[in-house]
Amino acid sequence: MKSYSPGEQPQQKKYVKLNTNENPYSPSELVLTRLRQACTDELRLYPDPDATHLRKLLSKTFSKKPEQFIVGNGSDELLTILIRSFVSENEVISYSYPTYGYYQPLIDIQGANAVVVDYPDDFSLPTELANTNAKLTFLVNPNSPSGTILPLEIIEDLASRVNGILAIDEAYIDFSTGGAMDLVESHVNVVIIRTMSKSFSLAGLRIGFACANTELIDGMLKVKDHYNVNRLSLVAAEAALEDIENMKQNAMLICQTRERLITDLRNMGFYVWESATNFVLVRSKKICAKNLYLELKKRGVLVRYFEQPRLDDCLRITVGTENETDFLLDQLRFILNRR
Amino acid sequence: MKSYSPGEQPQQKKYVKLNTNENPYSPSELVLTRLRQACTDELRLYPDPDATHLRKLLSKTFSKKPEQFIVGNGSDELLTILIRSFVSENEVISYSYPTYGYYQPLIDIQGANAVVVDYPDDFSLPTELANTNAKLTFLVNPNSPSGTILPLEIIEDLASRVNGILAIDEAYIDFSTGGAMDLVESHVNVVIIRTMSKSFSLAGLRIGFACANTELIDGMLKVKDHYNVNRLSLVAAEAALEDIENMKQNAMLICQTRERLITDLRNMGFYVWESATNFVLVRSKKICAKNLYLELKKRGVLVRYFEQPRLDDCLRITVGTENETDFLLDQLRFILNRR
Repeated sequence: MKSYSPGEQPQQKKYVKLNTNENPYSPSELVLTRLRQACTDELRLYPDPDATHLRKLLSKTFSKKPEQFIVGNGSDELLTILIRSFVSENEVISYSYPTYGYYQPLIDIQGANAVVVDYPDDFSLPTELANTNAKLTFLVNPNSPSGTILPLEIIEDLASRVNGILAIDEAYIDFSTGGAMDLVESHVNVVIIRTMSKSFSLAGLRIGFACANTELIDGMLKVKDHYNVNRLSLVAAEAALEDIENMKQNAMLICQTRERLITDLRNMGFYVWESATNFVLVRSKKICAKNLYLELKKRGVLVRYFEQPRLDDCLRITVGTENETDFLLDQLRFILNRR
Repeated sequence: MKSYSPGEQPQQKKYVKLNTNENPYSPSELVLTRLRQACTDELRLYPDPDATHLRKLLSKTFSKKPEQFIVGNGSDELLTILIRSFVSENEVISYSYPTYGYYQPLIDIQGANAVVVDYPDDFSLPTELANTNAKLTFLVNPNSPSGTILPLEIIEDLASRVNGILAIDEAYIDFSTGGAMDLVESHVNVVIIRTMSKSFSLAGLRIGFACANTELIDGMLKVKDHYNVNRLSLVAAEAALEDIENMKQNAMLICQTRERLITDLRNMGFYVWESATNFVLVRSKKICAKNLYLELKKRGVLVRYFEQPRLDDCLRITVGTENETDFLLDQLRFILNRR
């Protein structure tokens, strides 16, 4: 079994860190203030196992019932909970490749069988994904590492055609104009998974949530650890929703920088997919992508290189601040000109 | 499948809360100060997936190698990781009853088979626990809800006799003079599980750790979510170990209060087991235990009542502060005298 390797998290040296799709902007001041206020002796007490207040705020924010939400220790925990709730050993889980690299290790850990359907190079939906007879189908939308987004009608059609549960991982949705959350009302087999790691700038606090019909959520609640989300993460998540405008402004800024980055990269001769996320997938034909990754690292910029089929001629680059993006582009120009 | 019900966590009304074995004393000031300092824009970054610094501190504190530790989102997560690492569907997991009520739901979730061996009324070790052919055996020591502790030589003998892995859950060990961590050097099948929820007063931050030989820990690391422990919990855990003297002083105080509590309860006519923990198990013969629980709740004191075999004539009462203990005893006297 191969375990998943997350992007490097250097603990010492300072890099311009564009490798794990973290938000370059701070969480909202309200989040930081509330967190500091919550660092009291109350930390000796267990957190609310039902995340009651947070689920009320989610309900208000997304116009669903509180009982339609489950909160996780990052959306990664919700993936595990989903698998354990609905898939036994030797049953089928399917997804399209290339996508988030953690699904395969999670499937292996469960002893389930993966049916993997390849994306075409334009990352449109392979129709066969609906025909795998899977108990659970994962779809990342917008997709990582491609950055591409599928339109709602394609997703809805997929939801109608799969036999089992369709889990739509919307980690990057706030950087797009899409969102399939309303499908949970019309399709009992749809689960939407969200995270506060990217758009809400809270990767360090591990907060994810899922939305579905109450029956499906009830099944997941039975599998989750009772105290899975700690007190401070609950406080942060609540404040982040209260100040959701801050997130939206940061996301807008990132989208602007992204479009500029795409234009500049294309002008340099790279192939760049359209992106509805806070990163871009860049194909490097002139220079070996791995060398480019290593040279950028030497020059203080960390980007993501995936040494695996379909991606080994590409780099995934997170959209940083304007300054970070300038620095990245300068280093790229330097490396290209030197050749 | 029956899911586990943790003790009540009232979100509104104030109780003297003696039902879930939380520490009545604040976490160390160093912990709270470091936490406040860590509430910065760095929360936008993922935590260290390897908990590198924390594992170094654990290594120093317990004189083991850093590679012998795994850190979890509470020790509950480590229980799940243990089960998923070493037990497949339909394989056997065993434990003695009555003990921590979460093992059975975790076994059910995994689709494993439980072999449950009853404790005798004095909570000495049933010899048959070694003969279940289990892949994984759980032993809580000191045990909950009994509060009783088994001597090291009995545990060592059990470790030698079981076929599979022996997981020793030492959640309450800091309130005793025991500890079996050194068995991991002589027994490759022993895992020690600890938590910072009780003695370190950090239930709200969900920090557990396990210690074993490196091979066993490597197996568990493959199953854990990469970013399973958030940034602030790492900061808190590190500071808590740096100021471990604070924990030891609180634990000593709690042990003193515990002995006074036991004496007073016995003087009232209750049967009370010896305790090496921060709680006591009390058998109530004169008054129905459930009524006593309800009457105490009405009078502002939450204790734990387990409506299940062997425990339904008992209450488990957490050792609070001196004042909380006085209040509890006063309410008990009032209820007893009224009859």
